Amino acid sequence: MENIFTDEYFMKKALQEAEIAFEKDEIPVGAVIVANNTVIARAHNLTELLHDVTAHAEMQAITSAANFLGGKYLKGCTLYVTVEPCQMCAGALYWSQISKIVYGATDEKRGYLAMGTQIHPKTEVVSGVLAEECGALMISFFRKKR
Amino acid sequence: MENIFTDEYFMKKALQEAEIAFEKDEIPVGAVIVANNTVIARAHNLTELLHDVTAHAEMQAITSAANFLGGKYLKGCTLYVTVEPCQMCAGALYWSQISKIVYGATDEKRGYLAMGTQIHPKTEVVSGVLAEECGALMISFFRKKR
Repeated sequence: MENIFTDEYFMKKALQEAEIAFEKDEIPVGAVIVANNTVIARAHNLTELLHDVTAHAEMQAITSAANFLGGKYLKGCTLYVTVEPCQMCAGALYWSQISKIVYGATDEKRGYLAMGTQIHPKTEVVSGVLAEECGALMISFFRKKR
Repeated sequence: MENIFTDEYFMKKALQEAEIAFEKDEIPVGAVIVANNTVIARAHNLTELLHDVTAHAEMQAITSAANFLGGKYLKGCTLYVTVEPCQMCAGALYWSQISKIVYGATDEKRGYLAMGTQIHPKTEVVSGVLAEECGALMISFFRKKR
């Protein structure tokens, strides 16, 4: 039987979150955290609504997943996020010891790779999943803002 | 007239927060954010109590200060924190565009300097304020844990 729980499958869930952010006039980034093929946390960027630079999709998803699991470590979990994490989010993911990070579009200016942020040595990273769709939403948002 | 509002003055407030964390059996890090010589946010590490790796003193203080100010940027504000910020907290401070960061003890393993995290170009950093007291609290905590 074909495995339907692919990285694309869960990235689509993250994209749905990003679309909700877009509709709220937030920079459209969405994230979900998955454990045993089940979404245990979903979030989208809320920095404008909350007046809070820490309210990135990933940060909220980390807090929410840890709350669901009843412990602060996210070993065995995978984060799907539509855009490459920033320094702050990569730093939070480092502390969480999450097993896998899957992101869509690259952030060439403020992404963790460009900024030189360190990922936990036990964390696997996969990039470029639905990159075009994830990036298109960002481009469309900033075009609207101009 | 002598200015009582020195960096040491406000670091003592951050140390008080760190002591509260210590009493709660949390890694003893405390922070305050100051605007116009007034403390507008105070927080201490709560990662164990909240089961949340994002609940560092600095992160909570940033959220709290932005909430107080009604805007997400902390221009004109100073963060006092007893221990050098990590990647996550330095990343959050980057987004906040805070004017000044003052820290006490150095974190040679996981501090933002060792990890290579970038600070906002407009942010001034002062280190080593009450470093001995701030560091002694950490040493005492980890000695107790062994």
